[in-house]
Amino acid sequence: MANKRPLTVLKIGGAILDNPLALQSFYDGVKHLSGAKIIIHGGGNRASQIQTKMGITPEKINGRRVTDAQSLEIITMVYAGLLNKQLVAGLQALGKNAMGLSGADGDAVRAHKRVVNEVDYGFAGDIDSIHASFLHSLLDLGIIPVFSAITHDGKGQLLNTNADTLAAEISKAMSSLYHVQLLYVFDKPGVLENVTDPSSIMERIDQITYLQMLDKNLISEGMLPKLHTAFNALENGVLQVHLGTTKIIKDIDTKHTTLCL
Amino acid sequence: MANKRPLTVLKIGGAILDNPLALQSFYDGVKHLSGAKIIIHGGGNRASQIQTKMGITPEKINGRRVTDAQSLEIITMVYAGLLNKQLVAGLQALGKNAMGLSGADGDAVRAHKRVVNEVDYGFAGDIDSIHASFLHSLLDLGIIPVFSAITHDGKGQLLNTNADTLAAEISKAMSSLYHVQLLYVFDKPGVLENVTDPSSIMERIDQITYLQMLDKNLISEGMLPKLHTAFNALENGVLQVHLGTTKIIKDIDTKHTTLCL
Repeated sequence: MANKRPLTVLKIGGAILDNPLALQSFYDGVKHLSGAKIIIHGGGNRASQIQTKMGITPEKINGRRVTDAQSLEIITMVYAGLLNKQLVAGLQALGKNAMGLSGADGDAVRAHKRVVNEVDYGFAGDIDSIHASFLHSLLDLGIIPVFSAITHDGKGQLLNTNADTLAAEISKAMSSLYHVQLLYVFDKPGVLENVTDPSSIMERIDQITYLQMLDKNLISEGMLPKLHTAFNALENGVLQVHLGTTKIIKDIDTKHTTLCL
Repeated sequence: MANKRPLTVLKIGGAILDNPLALQSFYDGVKHLSGAKIIIHGGGNRASQIQTKMGITPEKINGRRVTDAQSLEIITMVYAGLLNKQLVAGLQALGKNAMGLSGADGDAVRAHKRVVNEVDYGFAGDIDSIHASFLHSLLDLGIIPVFSAITHDGKGQLLNTNADTLAAEISKAMSSLYHVQLLYVFDKPGVLENVTDPSSIMERIDQITYLQMLDKNLISEGMLPKLHTAFNALENGVLQVHLGTTKIIKDIDTKHTTLCL
């Protein structure tokens, strides 16, 4: 335990990638953030735009995308291709040696096609395993792994995985080797008591409060997978979870939401 | 020199990826090919199809694509996203631990935007450097690097590079560390004396013959960058260059074209 080094796992939402100012703030934060880092990015808005352009209506249930074969191709192109490589090139321009990955690359993340119960999510992947020692090798080479949330089943099938969940699972898996803090960076300053009032930031949410909020349906669709998986991460070795804007990357004292058990 | 291990650099053309039978033969070959491997794939046909679907006419001069900003986005999506990840997932299904890369990933391949002389190739990248020690580290981890031919300039700009050239440059760079053989695998059984007669394979082409053919305009547009860069590779430390169908991966005694100085 005493020899563990710090690792920041940084999830950035798709809205950050679409907003030049937020993206600049993200880069500025990463430039100043010392220590080992793993980045996981979303990309929902861009994929939805391209889907719409091609006449396909993106469908979501409980904040999770429904993925048919054609949507999977578009998502793979946009997430693992366009957004991932633009982000990696941007990080290289900062002098940060980044490497873009999907779960198929280096067999980093295995998943299985989600079992159909009430809802058929199509080619949605639920994570089975994270190849932590491989990620450790990359970090040892001074590389920042940059994940799109595409995974694979080991039998040749790519799958679409929720990026929030992927960030939490990577954090959990790496916590045997590192002291992990997990940052969810998105277009809001944290979890808001009143979703229309950006100043209503809940600065600390413990698990009891979370369960009460859940019970009263006070958690928005987009926030559900974040909070669910984040608390699961805290229960499984991850030391800290923070949610806020890109500003928290550079300065964790920026007002935001901290989760605690 | 005595301690150098063998390395096969395998360039597969876009037409292989579009043809299920050829793709199966490629996988079968890779499954049986022992030793360290680096794969570089094209993807011209798929990118052209999607470009056409979006009302953009793909343009080529001397077998090289002209890349405007919109084309670059599509190429990055299709090459580095869709095709690259499908290929990596397919290799993982064989039990081969592959990792998809663009030149931006791990700063593997730096290039500069091609200088405009008579022709403006747009965001075409001419290669400056290959990060050979990084590729060596991946090979040492038992990984097969799988490149799409997207590179970067180190200042945040992605660039479109000719995949044949990339394969030759990677082969040259790795030849200081490995005994390198370079295989160009495509939809023809080799260089043909008569392009309409698949049986007219030229089994050996030496540099004098090549220059004579070049002088008489006997080399087809698609073959120009292959042969030009392949002879350059032979002059710069690469031991063997072979051109043929996917069958040569499994069995190099299959009739094909060997280049020699």
